Amino acid sequence: MIDQEKELQAFLEKFHALEGKKILVHGGGKLATQMAQSMGMEAKMVEGRRITDAPTLRLVTMVYAGWINKNITAQLQALKCPSMGLSGADAGLILCQKRAPKPIDFGFVGDVIQVNGDLLVSLLELNLNLVIAPITADAQGQLLNTNADTIAQALAEALAKTYEVELLYCFEKKGVLMNAEDDASVIHHLDETRIDDLKAQQLVSDGMIPKLDNALKALKAGVHRVRILHARDLLQAQEGTEIQC
Amino acid sequence: MIDQEKELQAFLEKFHALEGKKILVHGGGKLATQMAQSMGMEAKMVEGRRITDAPTLRLVTMVYAGWINKNITAQLQALKCPSMGLSGADAGLILCQKRAPKPIDFGFVGDVIQVNGDLLVSLLELNLNLVIAPITADAQGQLLNTNADTIAQALAEALAKTYEVELLYCFEKKGVLMNAEDDASVIHHLDETRIDDLKAQQLVSDGMIPKLDNALKALKAGVHRVRILHARDLLQAQEGTEIQC
Repeated sequence: MIDQEKELQAFLEKFHALEGKKILVHGGGKLATQMAQSMGMEAKMVEGRRITDAPTLRLVTMVYAGWINKNITAQLQALKCPSMGLSGADAGLILCQKRAPKPIDFGFVGDVIQVNGDLLVSLLELNLNLVIAPITADAQGQLLNTNADTIAQALAEALAKTYEVELLYCFEKKGVLMNAEDDASVIHHLDETRIDDLKAQQLVSDGMIPKLDNALKALKAGVHRVRILHARDLLQAQEGTEIQC
Repeated sequence: MIDQEKELQAFLEKFHALEGKKILVHGGGKLATQMAQSMGMEAKMVEGRRITDAPTLRLVTMVYAGWINKNITAQLQALKCPSMGLSGADAGLILCQKRAPKPIDFGFVGDVIQVNGDLLVSLLELNLNLVIAPITADAQGQLLNTNADTIAQALAEALAKTYEVELLYCFEKKGVLMNAEDDASVIHHLDETRIDDLKAQQLVSDGMIPKLDNALKALKAGVHRVRILHARDLLQAQEGTEIQC
């Protein structure tokens, strides 16, 4: 969600200052869209949803796992924050399967089957922080574009078996808002009942629903704390929306 | 050097069959050139040498560290060959400095300063094989395009402190040839004196000279064996040109 060089730098400094072992799951959609346009590629949409066809898969693998992943990693290293950039395809870190083509064929999109938690722990115990691009693979070696919020939830769940895990969803708003136009309308606590209410009243945006669903899933699987907050509030332990079971 | 899908698959099967702990250093120049052309980017040349300007750096980082690195890794995983794809920028694996702009300004090109051998050993001891893209970073976090042959030599040297290391340079010829037109003219053994002779008589190609120089450097730094051979002969222990000190 951070497409400006200076904002990214400020975010990475905060990430470095966070205590404990850390994993940063990033996306890169805006840059991928810009690059696609510069290459004359048109976004393929079906029923309002973006499709990952073969050229798009290549582009997002290049942008996410190549340019963005390596830049973030190199910048963290320069801050003396030991960091290794990986994708879900590396060492079977996140095994996925291609989403079924019905009712909508999303193309090369992956759904998470399994996380290699032992490997994650081994790498973190080498005192490496991890930077993860949202590209995964299936058992046949097919690369797949995979939702970054879902990856964050799946990694948090796998780590909850070994560590006390806090999952932070950072974006460009101060949290879940009662009124999308009013940045001061942050809902500080949300539990499942209230989330169901908000959804029923269509008070949460399409982009927020997967974050909320992932948040509840993570908490039920043993993740200690989940918050949705502005990227610039990363070090503010009381900011944002805390999700509770 | 392997740009065909089928040849790559055959090579990866052989790589999987190799005994011992393994690191694959890859390039991807042909694909990068194709992509640059499709994006309307022209190769920047100075005195016949290719320059890595900012758009080229972005392209090669995307192609090498993104598309090629993750495809090779996913394909090896599918062969049940546990593999992690990294670049030299990850966890300070290969610290470089930007090449001095005199006499020729090559742009964002890196020269190796230091290899993080402890990290390499730690990863190999996790029973991971490594797939390394020839992108590195300097201490300030600037990504740099770096010669793959040099990276292979630097990694081999760093590992020679811990393991008995064989360094194999795979390309599309059967070894160093006496006559470039005759694939049967392989020179099976080359020592430093003979290499100097061949260079003096201009009997080796420009592309081969860095491989030979890297080979000698690696042997002097304790690498056990160095060969230059055809990629399809990867499992043939007696094929190719063996370099000796």
